Amino acid sequence: MQYFDEPTIVVFSGGQDSTTCLVWALKRFKKLYIMTFNYHQRHSIEIEMAKKIVNILKSEDRKKYLNWLKDDKIEEHKIVEINVLSNLLKTAMIQESEIIYDEETGLPTTFVPGRNILFLTIAAAYAYQKKIRHIVIGVCQTDYSGYPDCRDSTIKALQATIKLGMDYDVIIHTPLMWRSKAETIKLMQKLGGLELYKYTHTCYRGERPACGECFACELRLKGFEEVGIKDPLEYKNQK
Amino acid sequence: MQYFDEPTIVVFSGGQDSTTCLVWALKRFKKLYIMTFNYHQRHSIEIEMAKKIVNILKSEDRKKYLNWLKDDKIEEHKIVEINVLSNLLKTAMIQESEIIYDEETGLPTTFVPGRNILFLTIAAAYAYQKKIRHIVIGVCQTDYSGYPDCRDSTIKALQATIKLGMDYDVIIHTPLMWRSKAETIKLMQKLGGLELYKYTHTCYRGERPACGECFACELRLKGFEEVGIKDPLEYKNQK
Repeated sequence: MQYFDEPTIVVFSGGQDSTTCLVWALKRFKKLYIMTFNYHQRHSIEIEMAKKIVNILKSEDRKKYLNWLKDDKIEEHKIVEINVLSNLLKTAMIQESEIIYDEETGLPTTFVPGRNILFLTIAAAYAYQKKIRHIVIGVCQTDYSGYPDCRDSTIKALQATIKLGMDYDVIIHTPLMWRSKAETIKLMQKLGGLELYKYTHTCYRGERPACGECFACELRLKGFEEVGIKDPLEYKNQK
Repeated sequence: MQYFDEPTIVVFSGGQDSTTCLVWALKRFKKLYIMTFNYHQRHSIEIEMAKKIVNILKSEDRKKYLNWLKDDKIEEHKIVEINVLSNLLKTAMIQESEIIYDEETGLPTTFVPGRNILFLTIAAAYAYQKKIRHIVIGVCQTDYSGYPDCRDSTIKALQATIKLGMDYDVIIHTPLMWRSKAETIKLMQKLGGLELYKYTHTCYRGERPACGECFACELRLKGFEEVGIKDPLEYKNQK
Protein backbone atom coordinates (compact mmCIF):
# COMPACT_ATOMS: atom_id res chain seq x y z
CA MET A 1 0.00 0.00 0.00
CA GLN A 2 2.03 2.91 -1.28
CA TYR A 3 0.94 6.24 -2.71
CA PHE A 4 4.25 7.58 -3.93
CA ASP A 5 2.62 9.94 -6.35
CA GLU A 6 0.13 11.55 -4.03
CA PRO A 7 0.19 14.10 -1.25
CA THR A 8 -1.52 13.59 2.09
CA ILE A 9 -2.67 15.59 5.04
CA VAL A 10 -1.38 14.40 8.43
CA VAL A 11 -3.18 15.40 11.62
CA PHE A 12 -0.26 15.76 13.99
CA SER A 13 -0.38 16.53 17.71
CA GLY A 14 3.25 15.97 18.62
CA GLY A 15 2.39 12.88 20.65
CA GLN A 16 3.82 9.41 20.33
CA ASP A 17 1.00 8.04 18.19
CA SER A 18 0.83 10.89 15.75
CA THR A 19 4.62 10.99 15.37
CA THR A 20 4.49 7.31 14.42
CA CYS A 21 1.79 8.17 11.88
CA LEU A 22 3.85 11.03 10.54
CA VAL A 23 6.78 8.70 9.87
CA TRP A 24 4.41 6.11 8.40
CA ALA A 25 3.10 8.81 6.05
CA LEU A 26 6.61 10.00 5.13
CA LYS A 27 7.32 6.46 3.96
CA ARG A 28 4.21 6.23 1.81
CA PHE A 29 3.30 9.61 0.38
CA LYS A 30 4.96 12.09 -1.90
CA LYS A 31 4.29 15.28 0.01
CA LEU A 32 2.95 15.97 3.48
CA TYR A 33 0.63 18.76 4.57
CA ILE A 34 0.79 18.65 8.34
CA MET A 35 -1.98 20.13 10.47
CA THR A 36 -1.55 20.67 14.20
CA PHE A 37 -4.64 21.88 16.00
CA ASN A 38 -4.22 24.44 18.71
CA TYR A 39 -7.47 24.26 20.61
CA HIS A 40 -5.95 25.75 23.74
CA GLN A 41 -5.30 22.29 25.02
CA ARG A 42 -4.08 21.78 28.51
CA HIS A 43 -0.42 21.93 27.59
CA SER A 44 1.01 24.11 24.87
CA ILE A 45 4.23 22.11 25.22
CA GLU A 46 2.60 19.59 22.87
CA ILE A 47 2.56 22.14 20.07
CA GLU A 48 6.17 23.15 20.74
CA MET A 49 7.24 19.52 20.44
CA ALA A 50 5.20 19.14 17.23
CA LYS A 51 7.09 22.10 15.74
CA LYS A 52 10.41 20.69 16.89
CA ILE A 53 9.78 17.31 15.27
CA VAL A 54 8.72 18.94 12.00
CA ASN A 55 11.82 21.15 12.06
CA ILE A 56 14.05 18.11 12.48
CA LEU A 57 12.34 16.32 9.60
CA LYS A 58 12.69 19.35 7.35
CA SER A 59 16.38 19.89 8.17
CA GLU A 60 19.42 17.92 7.08
CA ASP A 61 19.32 16.36 10.55
CA ARG A 62 16.43 14.19 9.43
CA LYS A 63 18.87 11.51 8.22
CA LYS A 64 20.06 11.02 11.79
CA TYR A 65 16.50 10.11 12.77
CA LEU A 66 15.27 8.41 9.60
CA ASN A 67 18.15 7.22 7.50
CA TRP A 68 15.90 6.48 4.51
CA LEU A 69 14.43 10.00 4.36
CA LYS A 70 16.48 11.68 1.62
CA ASP A 71 14.33 14.69 0.78
CA ASP A 72 12.27 17.17 2.70
CA LYS A 73 8.80 15.86 1.96
CA ILE A 74 6.99 18.30 4.23
CA GLU A 75 5.23 20.86 2.10
CA GLU A 76 3.82 22.83 5.02
CA HIS A 77 3.03 22.67 8.71
CA LYS A 78 -0.09 24.57 9.65
CA ILE A 79 -0.90 25.34 13.25
CA VAL A 80 -4.67 25.62 13.07
CA GLU A 81 -6.14 27.79 15.81
CA ILE A 82 -9.54 26.70 17.08
CA ASN A 83 -11.04 28.82 19.79
CA VAL A 84 -14.53 27.43 19.60
CA LEU A 85 -13.84 24.42 21.82
CA SER A 86 -12.31 26.36 24.68
CA ASN A 87 -14.99 29.03 24.40
CA LEU A 88 -17.90 26.62 24.47
CA LEU A 89 -16.83 23.61 26.43
CA LYS A 90 -15.62 22.85 29.87
CA THR A 91 -13.27 19.89 29.93
CA ALA A 92 -10.12 19.04 31.76
CA MET A 93 -8.30 18.65 28.44
CA ILE A 94 -8.74 22.36 27.92
CA GLN A 95 -9.17 23.95 31.33
CA GLU A 96 -6.89 23.58 34.29
CA SER A 97 -9.19 21.29 36.20
CA GLU A 98 -8.38 17.98 37.76
CA ILE A 99 -8.45 14.86 35.61
CA ILE A 100 -10.87 12.33 36.98
CA TYR A 101 -13.21 9.71 35.59
CA ASP A 102 -16.74 10.95 35.20
CA GLU A 103 -18.89 8.23 36.71
CA GLU A 104 -21.89 9.19 34.66
CA THR A 105 -20.26 8.92 31.23
CA GLY A 106 -17.51 6.45 32.15
CA LEU A 107 -15.05 8.77 30.41
CA PRO A 108 -12.17 10.76 31.83
CA THR A 109 -12.97 14.46 32.23
CA THR A 110 -10.38 15.08 29.53
CA PHE A 111 -12.91 14.00 26.88
CA VAL A 112 -13.57 16.83 24.42
CA PRO A 113 -16.83 15.85 22.73
CA GLY A 114 -16.56 15.93 18.96
CA ARG A 115 -12.89 16.81 18.87
CA ASN A 116 -11.82 14.34 16.22
CA ILE A 117 -14.98 14.92 14.17
CA LEU A 118 -14.14 18.61 14.17
CA PHE A 119 -10.46 18.16 13.36
CA LEU A 120 -11.15 15.71 10.56
CA THR A 121 -13.90 17.86 9.08
CA ILE A 122 -11.55 20.84 8.98
CA ALA A 123 -8.78 18.67 7.53
CA ALA A 124 -11.23 17.39 4.90
CA ALA A 125 -12.33 20.93 4.00
CA TYR A 126 -8.68 21.79 3.49
CA ALA A 127 -8.16 18.59 1.50
CA TYR A 128 -11.11 19.58 -0.69
CA GLN A 129 -9.59 22.97 -1.33
CA LYS A 130 -6.12 21.56 -2.10
CA LYS A 131 -7.52 18.56 -4.02
CA ILE A 132 -5.77 16.12 -1.68
CA ARG A 133 -7.37 12.69 -1.30
CA HIS A 134 -5.72 11.40 1.86
CA ILE A 135 -5.78 12.21 5.56
CA VAL A 136 -3.69 10.32 8.11
CA ILE A 137 -4.62 10.41 11.80
CA GLY A 138 -3.31 8.46 14.77
CA VAL A 139 -6.60 7.49 16.40
CA CYS A 140 -6.69 4.11 18.00
CA GLN A 141 -9.60 2.03 19.21
CA THR A 142 -7.43 0.09 21.62
CA ASP A 143 -6.61 3.45 23.21
CA TYR A 144 -6.87 3.10 26.98
CA SER A 145 -9.29 5.89 27.66
CA GLY A 146 -12.04 4.71 25.34
CA TYR A 147 -12.78 8.07 23.74
CA PRO A 148 -15.68 7.23 21.43
CA ASP A 149 -14.42 9.51 18.64
CA CYS A 150 -11.32 7.33 18.27
CA ARG A 151 -13.40 4.33 17.33
CA ASP A 152 -13.24 2.74 13.92
CA SER A 153 -17.01 3.11 13.43
CA THR A 154 -16.89 6.83 14.16
CA ILE A 155 -14.13 7.39 11.63
CA LYS A 156 -15.86 5.34 8.95
CA ALA A 157 -19.20 7.04 9.56
CA LEU A 158 -17.43 10.38 9.35
CA GLN A 159 -15.74 9.47 6.08
CA ALA A 160 -19.18 8.67 4.68
CA THR A 161 -20.56 11.94 6.07
CA ILE A 162 -17.74 13.91 4.46
CA LYS A 163 -18.30 12.16 1.14
CA LEU A 164 -21.97 13.08 1.29
CA GLY A 165 -21.46 16.57 2.66
CA MET A 166 -18.68 17.67 0.33
CA ASP A 167 -19.28 15.40 -2.65
CA TYR A 168 -15.62 14.62 -2.34
CA ASP A 169 -13.81 11.36 -1.68
CA VAL A 170 -11.37 11.55 1.16
CA ILE A 171 -9.69 8.47 2.57
CA ILE A 172 -9.05 8.68 6.29
CA HIS A 173 -6.06 6.46 7.06
CA THR A 174 -5.80 5.19 10.63
CA PRO A 175 -2.69 3.01 10.72
CA LEU A 176 -2.83 2.64 14.51
CA MET A 177 -6.53 1.79 14.85
CA TRP A 178 -6.02 -1.79 15.99
CA ARG A 179 -2.54 -1.55 17.41
CA SER A 180 -1.72 -1.66 21.11
CA LYS A 181 0.83 0.85 22.41
CA ALA A 182 3.46 -1.90 22.19
CA GLU A 183 2.56 -2.63 18.57
CA THR A 184 2.77 1.07 17.73
CA ILE A 185 6.28 1.15 19.16
CA LYS A 186 7.15 -1.93 17.09
CA LEU A 187 5.84 -0.18 13.99
CA MET A 188 8.06 2.80 14.72
CA GLN A 189 10.98 0.44 15.26
CA LYS A 190 10.33 -1.13 11.87
CA LEU A 191 10.20 2.34 10.32
CA GLY A 192 13.54 3.12 11.97
CA GLY A 193 12.24 6.22 13.73
CA LEU A 194 12.45 5.29 17.42
CA GLU A 195 14.85 8.14 18.25
CA LEU A 196 12.16 10.65 17.33
CA TYR A 197 10.21 9.52 20.38
CA LYS A 198 12.65 11.56 22.41
CA TYR A 199 10.71 14.66 21.37
CA THR A 200 7.17 13.35 21.56
CA HIS A 201 4.95 14.57 24.33
CA THR A 202 2.74 12.23 26.33
CA CYS A 203 2.69 13.39 29.97
CA TYR A 204 -0.77 14.57 31.04
CA ARG A 205 0.80 16.88 33.58
CA GLY A 206 2.64 18.66 30.79
CA GLU A 207 6.02 18.07 32.39
CA ARG A 208 9.35 17.76 30.60
CA PRO A 209 11.21 15.65 31.70
CA ALA A 210 7.97 13.66 31.85
CA CYS A 211 6.56 12.92 35.30
CA GLY A 212 6.56 9.16 34.71
CA GLU A 213 3.66 8.82 37.11
CA CYS A 214 0.47 10.11 35.46
CA PHE A 215 -1.67 7.52 33.69
CA ALA A 216 -0.47 8.67 30.24
CA CYS A 217 3.18 8.27 31.23
CA GLU A 218 2.43 4.92 32.85
CA LEU A 219 0.73 3.63 29.76
CA ARG A 220 3.59 4.81 27.58
CA LEU A 221 6.21 3.19 29.78
CA LYS A 222 4.22 -0.03 29.90
CA GLY A 223 4.27 -0.14 26.09
CA PHE A 224 8.05 0.18 25.97
CA GLU A 225 8.42 -2.41 28.70
CA GLU A 226 6.31 -4.86 26.71
CA VAL A 227 8.49 -4.44 23.64
CA GLY A 228 11.65 -4.56 25.73
CA ILE A 229 12.97 -1.23 24.46
CA LYS A 230 14.07 1.77 26.49
CA ASP A 231 11.97 4.88 25.89
CA PRO A 232 14.34 7.58 24.60
CA LEU A 233 12.23 10.21 26.40
CA GLU A 234 13.61 11.71 29.60
CA TYR A 235 11.68 11.02 32.80
CA LYS A 236 11.87 12.53 36.24
CA ASN A 237 10.75 9.38 37.97
CA GLN A 238 10.51 5.98 36.51
CA LYS A 239 9.21 3.00 38.39
CA MET B 1 -44.76 16.12 17.44
CA GLN B 2 -44.29 18.35 20.46
CA TYR B 3 -41.53 18.41 23.02
CA PHE B 4 -42.98 20.86 25.50
CA ASP B 5 -40.80 19.60 28.30
CA GLU B 6 -37.46 19.70 26.55
CA PRO B 7 -34.97 22.35 25.51
CA THR B 8 -33.44 22.52 22.05
CA ILE B 9 -30.51 24.13 20.30
CA VAL B 10 -31.39 26.17 17.20
CA VAL B 11 -28.73 26.93 14.60
CA PHE B 12 -29.79 30.40 13.52
CA SER B 13 -28.24 32.51 10.78
CA GLY B 14 -30.76 35.34 10.62
CA GLY B 15 -31.96 34.24 7.18
CA GLN B 16 -35.47 33.46 6.08
CA ASP B 17 -35.17 29.69 6.51
CA SER B 18 -33.58 29.72 9.92
CA THR B 19 -36.05 32.33 11.19
CA THR B 20 -38.86 30.02 10.13
CA CYS B 21 -37.12 27.20 12.02
CA LEU B 22 -36.69 29.40 15.06
CA VAL B 23 -40.43 30.09 15.17
CA TRP B 24 -41.14 26.40 14.54
CA ALA B 25 -38.91 25.57 17.52
CA LEU B 26 -40.54 28.22 19.72
CA LYS B 27 -43.84 26.47 19.10
CA ARG B 28 -42.52 23.04 20.04
CA PHE B 29 -39.83 23.28 22.69
CA LYS B 30 -39.66 24.52 26.23
CA LYS B 31 -36.44 26.52 26.05
CA LEU B 32 -34.24 27.60 23.16
CA TYR B 33 -30.45 27.79 23.08
CA ILE B 34 -29.72 29.73 19.92
CA MET B 35 -26.34 29.48 18.20
CA THR B 36 -25.33 31.91 15.46
CA PHE B 37 -22.03 31.14 13.80
CA ASN B 38 -19.79 34.01 12.91
CA TYR B 39 -17.36 32.50 10.44
CA HIS B 40 -16.46 35.85 8.92
CA GLN B 41 -19.09 35.33 6.33
CA ARG B 42 -19.40 37.71 3.45
CA HIS B 43 -21.88 39.97 5.19
CA SER B 44 -21.86 40.71 8.90
CA ILE B 45 -25.32 42.25 8.42
CA GLU B 46 -26.66 38.71 8.70
CA ILE B 47 -25.48 38.50 12.30
CA GLU B 48 -26.90 41.92 13.11
CA MET B 49 -30.29 40.82 11.84
CA ALA B 50 -30.04 37.57 13.82
CA LYS B 51 -29.47 39.61 16.99
CA LYS B 52 -32.36 41.91 16.14
CA ILE B 53 -34.79 39.04 15.67
CA VAL B 54 -33.72 37.43 18.94
CA ASN B 55 -34.10 40.75 20.74
CA ILE B 56 -37.64 41.14 19.44
CA LEU B 57 -38.54 37.62 20.54
CA LYS B 58 -37.09 38.20 23.99
CA SER B 59 -38.87 41.53 24.48
CA GLU B 60 -42.52 42.25 25.16
CA ASP B 61 -42.76 43.15 21.47
CA ARG B 62 -42.75 39.46 20.64
CA LYS B 63 -46.55 39.34 20.92
CA LYS B 64 -46.83 41.74 17.97
CA TYR B 65 -44.96 39.23 15.83
CA LEU B 66 -46.17 35.95 17.33
CA ASN B 67 -49.40 36.44 19.19
CA TRP B 68 -49.22 32.98 20.78
CA LEU B 69 -45.76 33.51 22.30
CA LYS B 70 -46.51 34.43 25.89
CA ASP B 71 -43.14 33.90 27.57
CA ASP B 72 -39.55 34.54 26.71
CA LYS B 73 -38.47 31.03 25.79
CA ILE B 74 -34.97 32.01 24.69
CA GLU B 75 -32.49 30.90 27.31
CA GLU B 76 -29.45 32.27 25.50
CA HIS B 77 -28.15 33.47 22.15
CA LYS B 78 -24.54 32.56 21.55
CA ILE B 79 -22.59 34.14 18.73
CA VAL B 80 -19.99 31.46 18.09
CA GLU B 81 -16.81 32.78 16.52
CA ILE B 82 -15.11 30.43 14.09
CA ASN B 83 -11.94 31.71 12.53
CA VAL B 84 -10.75 28.43 11.14
CA LEU B 85 -12.84 28.58 7.96
CA SER B 86 -11.72 32.02 6.91
CA ASN B 87 -8.12 31.21 7.82
CA LEU B 88 -7.98 27.99 5.86
CA LEU B 89 -10.38 28.30 2.98
CA LYS B 90 -10.86 30.53 0.03
CA THR B 91 -14.50 30.84 -0.91
CA ALA B 92 -16.70 33.63 -2.10
CA MET B 93 -18.94 33.12 0.93
CA ILE B 94 -16.10 34.32 3.09
CA GLN B 95 -13.83 36.44 0.94
CA GLU B 96 -14.82 39.39 -1.15
CA SER B 97 -14.55 37.58 -4.44
CA GLU B 98 -17.10 37.36 -7.20
CA ILE B 99 -19.84 34.77 -6.98
CA ILE B 100 -19.77 32.48 -9.96
CA TYR B 101 -20.50 28.84 -10.68
CA ASP B 102 -17.42 26.68 -10.57
CA GLU B 103 -17.63 24.58 -13.72
CA GLU B 104 -15.53 21.82 -12.26
CA THR B 105 -17.62 21.20 -9.14
CA GLY B 106 -20.95 22.46 -10.47
CA LEU B 107 -21.29 24.48 -7.28
CA PRO B 108 -21.36 28.23 -6.77
CA THR B 109 -18.06 29.61 -5.45
CA THR B 110 -19.96 30.46 -2.26
CA PHE B 111 -19.75 26.79 -1.23
CA VAL B 112 -17.90 26.45 2.07
CA PRO B 113 -16.92 22.79 2.23
CA GLY B 114 -17.94 21.14 5.45
CA ARG B 115 -19.69 24.17 6.88
CA ASN B 116 -22.82 22.45 8.13
CA ILE B 117 -20.86 19.43 9.36
CA LEU B 118 -18.72 21.80 11.39
CA PHE B 119 -21.63 23.85 12.73
CA LEU B 120 -23.63 20.78 13.69
CA THR B 121 -20.66 19.08 15.33
CA ILE B 122 -20.04 22.16 17.45
CA ALA B 123 -23.75 22.41 18.25
CA ALA B 124 -23.74 18.72 19.21
CA ALA B 125 -20.67 19.17 21.45
CA TYR B 126 -22.53 21.97 23.19
CA ALA B 127 -25.67 19.83 23.39
CA TYR B 128 -23.59 17.08 24.98
CA GLN B 129 -22.27 19.48 27.57
CA LYS B 130 -25.70 20.94 28.36
CA LYS B 131 -27.44 17.54 28.13
CA ILE B 132 -29.77 18.81 25.42
CA ARG B 133 -31.15 16.19 23.03
CA HIS B 134 -32.36 18.34 20.15
CA ILE B 135 -30.84 20.51 17.44
CA VAL B 136 -32.94 22.40 14.88
CA ILE B 137 -31.37 23.59 11.62
CA GLY B 138 -32.92 25.07 8.50
CA VAL B 139 -31.12 23.04 5.86
CA CYS B 140 -33.13 22.13 2.82
CA GLN B 141 -32.44 19.63 0.10
CA THR B 142 -34.67 21.48 -2.36
CA ASP B 143 -32.35 24.46 -1.83
CA TYR B 144 -31.54 25.93 -5.24
CA SER B 145 -27.77 25.87 -5.03
CA GLY B 146 -27.43 22.17 -4.31
CA TYR B 147 -24.92 22.48 -1.49
CA PRO B 148 -24.21 18.84 -0.67
CA ASP B 149 -24.05 19.47 3.06
CA CYS B 150 -27.72 20.49 3.06
CA ARG B 151 -28.79 17.07 1.86
CA ASP B 152 -30.87 14.75 3.96
CA SER B 153 -28.30 11.94 3.62
CA THR B 154 -25.50 14.17 4.89
CA ILE B 155 -27.49 15.18 7.95
CA LYS B 156 -28.51 11.62 8.73
CA ALA B 157 -24.97 10.32 8.27
CA LEU B 158 -23.74 13.10 10.53
CA GLN B 159 -26.28 12.26 13.22
CA ALA B 160 -25.00 8.68 13.15
CA THR B 161 -21.39 9.94 13.27
CA ILE B 162 -22.17 12.12 16.29
CA LYS B 163 -23.90 9.24 18.05
CA LEU B 164 -20.81 7.08 17.49
CA GLY B 165 -18.28 9.81 18.20
CA MET B 166 -19.85 11.18 21.36
CA ASP B 167 -21.83 8.19 22.57
CA TYR B 168 -24.70 10.62 22.82
CA ASP B 169 -28.05 10.69 21.09
CA VAL B 170 -28.79 13.97 19.42
CA ILE B 171 -31.78 14.40 17.13
CA ILE B 172 -31.12 16.82 14.28
CA HIS B 173 -34.48 18.30 13.27
CA THR B 174 -34.70 19.65 9.74
CA PRO B 175 -38.27 20.92 9.32
CA LEU B 176 -37.49 22.51 5.95
CA MET B 177 -35.66 19.59 4.36
CA TRP B 178 -38.31 18.80 1.74
CA ARG B 179 -40.02 22.18 1.53
CA SER B 180 -39.75 24.52 -1.41
CA LYS B 181 -39.25 28.22 -0.65
CA ALA B 182 -42.99 28.72 -1.16
CA GLU B 183 -43.81 25.92 1.26
CA THR B 184 -41.47 27.40 3.86
CA ILE B 185 -43.33 30.70 3.56
CA LYS B 186 -46.64 28.84 3.97
CA LEU B 187 -45.27 27.17 7.10
CA MET B 188 -44.38 30.58 8.52
CA GLN B 189 -47.83 31.84 7.61
CA LYS B 190 -49.37 28.93 9.49
CA LEU B 191 -47.14 29.72 12.47
CA GLY B 192 -48.33 33.34 12.31
CA GLY B 193 -44.81 34.74 12.06
CA LEU B 194 -44.73 36.29 8.58
CA GLU B 195 -44.00 39.80 9.87
CA LEU B 196 -40.65 38.61 11.26
CA TYR B 197 -39.49 38.16 7.66
CA LYS B 198 -39.08 41.92 7.58
CA TYR B 199 -35.84 41.48 9.50
CA THR B 200 -34.47 38.38 7.83
CA HIS B 201 -31.48 38.73 5.58
CA THR B 202 -31.27 37.01 2.21
CA CYS B 203 -29.50 39.34 -0.26
CA TYR B 204 -26.14 37.92 -1.40
CA ARG B 205 -24.89 41.42 -2.02
CA GLY B 206 -25.44 42.21 1.67
CA GLU B 207 -27.68 45.16 0.87
CA ARG B 208 -30.50 46.55 3.01
CA PRO B 209 -32.94 47.42 1.53
CA ALA B 210 -32.25 44.20 -0.39
CA CYS B 211 -31.06 44.54 -3.97
CA GLY B 212 -33.93 42.45 -5.36
CA GLU B 213 -31.73 41.40 -8.24
CA CYS B 214 -29.15 38.88 -7.01
CA PHE B 215 -30.06 35.22 -7.33
CA ALA B 216 -30.82 34.92 -3.61
CA CYS B 217 -33.25 37.87 -3.73
CA GLU B 218 -34.80 36.54 -6.92
CA LEU B 219 -35.39 33.14 -5.40
CA ARG B 220 -36.88 34.68 -2.30
CA LEU B 221 -39.22 36.91 -4.29
CA LYS B 222 -40.25 33.99 -6.47
CA GLY B 223 -41.27 32.08 -3.32
CA PHE B 224 -43.53 34.89 -2.15
CA GLU B 225 -44.97 35.27 -5.62
CA GLU B 226 -45.88 31.58 -5.70
CA VAL B 227 -47.72 31.84 -2.38
CA GLY B 228 -49.33 35.12 -3.43
CA ILE B 229 -48.07 37.04 -0.40
CA LYS B 230 -46.11 40.28 -0.32
CA ASP B 231 -42.65 39.94 1.19
CA PRO B 232 -42.52 42.33 4.19
CA LEU B 233 -38.82 42.93 3.49
CA GLU B 234 -37.84 46.24 1.91
CA TYR B 235 -36.32 46.10 -1.58
CA LYS B 236 -34.50 48.69 -3.65
CA ASN B 237 -35.64 47.22 -6.92
CA GLN B 238 -38.34 44.71 -7.44
CA LYS B 239 -39.20 43.27 -10.82
